[in-house]
Amino acid sequence: MIVDPQTDPPAFQDVLDAREALRHVAYRTPLLRSDDIDRELGRPVWFKTECLQRTGSFKVRGAWNRCQHIPPAELPRGVVAYSSGNHAQGVASAAQRLGIPATIVMPADAPAAKRIATEGYGALVVLYDRSSESREAIGEEIQSRTGATLIRPFDDAWVIAGQATATLEAIEDADELGVQFDAMLCPASGGGLLAGAAIVLAERSKQTALHVAEPQGHDDHLRSLEQGVVVENAPGFRSIADALLAPQPGNLTFPITRRHVRSGLAVSDTDIQRAMYTSFRCLKLVVEPGGAVAFAALRSQSASVAGDGPVLVMLSGGNVDAALFSDALAIGAAAERT
Amino acid sequence: MIVDPQTDPPAFQDVLDAREALRHVAYRTPLLRSDDIDRELGRPVWFKTECLQRTGSFKVRGAWNRCQHIPPAELPRGVVAYSSGNHAQGVASAAQRLGIPATIVMPADAPAAKRIATEGYGALVVLYDRSSESREAIGEEIQSRTGATLIRPFDDAWVIAGQATATLEAIEDADELGVQFDAMLCPASGGGLLAGAAIVLAERSKQTALHVAEPQGHDDHLRSLEQGVVVENAPGFRSIADALLAPQPGNLTFPITRRHVRSGLAVSDTDIQRAMYTSFRCLKLVVEPGGAVAFAALRSQSASVAGDGPVLVMLSGGNVDAALFSDALAIGAAAERT
Repeated sequence: MIVDPQTDPPAFQDVLDAREALRHVAYRTPLLRSDDIDRELGRPVWFKTECLQRTGSFKVRGAWNRCQHIPPAELPRGVVAYSSGNHAQGVASAAQRLGIPATIVMPADAPAAKRIATEGYGALVVLYDRSSESREAIGEEIQSRTGATLIRPFDDAWVIAGQATATLEAIEDADELGVQFDAMLCPASGGGLLAGAAIVLAERSKQTALHVAEPQGHDDHLRSLEQGVVVENAPGFRSIADALLAPQPGNLTFPITRRHVRSGLAVSDTDIQRAMYTSFRCLKLVVEPGGAVAFAALRSQSASVAGDGPVLVMLSGGNVDAALFSDALAIGAAAERT
Repeated sequence: MIVDPQTDPPAFQDVLDAREALRHVAYRTPLLRSDDIDRELGRPVWFKTECLQRTGSFKVRGAWNRCQHIPPAELPRGVVAYSSGNHAQGVASAAQRLGIPATIVMPADAPAAKRIATEGYGALVVLYDRSSESREAIGEEIQSRTGATLIRPFDDAWVIAGQATATLEAIEDADELGVQFDAMLCPASGGGLLAGAAIVLAERSKQTALHVAEPQGHDDHLRSLEQGVVVENAPGFRSIADALLAPQPGNLTFPITRRHVRSGLAVSDTDIQRAMYTSFRCLKLVVEPGGAVAFAALRSQSASVAGDGPVLVMLSGGNVDAALFSDALAIGAAAERT
């Protein structure tokens, strides 16, 4: 049982509870595939399509589930969160549904689509400078001033349990199709989705090897797993995967992912853009850079992925500006022609 | 019962039979929605997402169902079809799955993505000039030379029955959600998908008014319905909706759609591009111009659509070249800013 959500890791029962809490809030996103992609990769590839989730990413799962555990007396003071955009939308959407105020601390360079969407859910957006200010400090200041509950993006047991429901649905749908995954690829920033996947696979799909996918230069999970301790990214590195720029694995998520993750795979911006293009061409899905990282890793490093049977790829979000998406299509289409 | 598929209209039982034939071939594409779109339009909008269908459009349904009715002795001679691209892919994919040869007669100006994909399914593609040659004549010449079965794109009862399964699935999924549609918007070229929708609604959802959506200048269904007889489009008109350029409603489809279609709605290229952009932003779906026509009609002429309750929009395909898609995003994003 979770007493302190910052220190107590979630159990599988917490994932089942989260699923109940999310029943009429999160969509059960479909598990999709493509003949062309199977042929290209020489194995059946299944995609959990969280880009089709309400708010455009899986984050609404954790945000809503976390909000269910705010004591009723504290609810009217609202919630606060810091996020580059997807967690922001998840929290803002959950708060709107609950009828409580939300303040979101967002980097000034976050994609416009994400900022506008967050404001569209009625949240107050406070911008900060990623290079000189600490989002945690700003978030905690707002929290202490307003009494709002801080909804952490990953170091929270109820958030992790919520994110885990995405993997649970994928495993259940695969069971119904008679499909067992040899491997699953999952992106990570702080590691909430990844830790959730680890908990679900350990309980329901032990034969599935879990790989974490990250942008090159932001491969803090990969390096932390190799070294056995939490390692930070060097500051200042840029990637188009704006959703995956947390400085290091979480304190709550890392002990979980360390136990269960088989290996890490890092991909370049070009790998990501090519995966976005292939998702466009073969899946007809809009996937944002951070959401395409796992697919990019499967395509660019297929030999490092466990087994040769079915593989599950988590497409975690689809919130991307039109100009950036068009750039990815141009680069992907050009790469395909050569 | 269908004796001659060119003259006998399909009954609802033929749709149920088609569903059985398609069980492990066509995907059951999801019915999706968006909070933002509901808010914009002031009513619940549900999307049947045939852009996520195998081959990227609904056309594989009709093609596969038609192929099931080829006498076994004739199967080895293969199939021939004329198509601007989506029917081509549907027929080529069905033929590949059956292990028989396919020849596709395709206009020289068809999108490269569609031609390449058709060849990717192993079909032989024969190009023709849309302005000076008759695709029907070329198709029939190949048919008489090779003995291949001509798979008509819409004037075939088994093709119509196959296309109808898309609407049947949408109605069934809505039933499960407790949703009843006041209206359905469906694109039309020759009218196979539309006639299939009409047959299904008449049997399973009588309260749903059916509207046909078409590109301006290619509104042959609208004008044929108004005049009560089949009217041709003026030749030479261009639209970005390359999938919807059949010259007139079909001889088999029109008597069905005439009986059931409430009204026609014609949209401009800009309406279509804006609908493609909104599908990108709110649904995270890649929808081709022809596939976005019904959504464009709902957005640009919402007052002409029946009722104020739930509405079903058929997104019929997603096979679009990257450059054309990026153009639509740029135009849609610019329109949204103004």
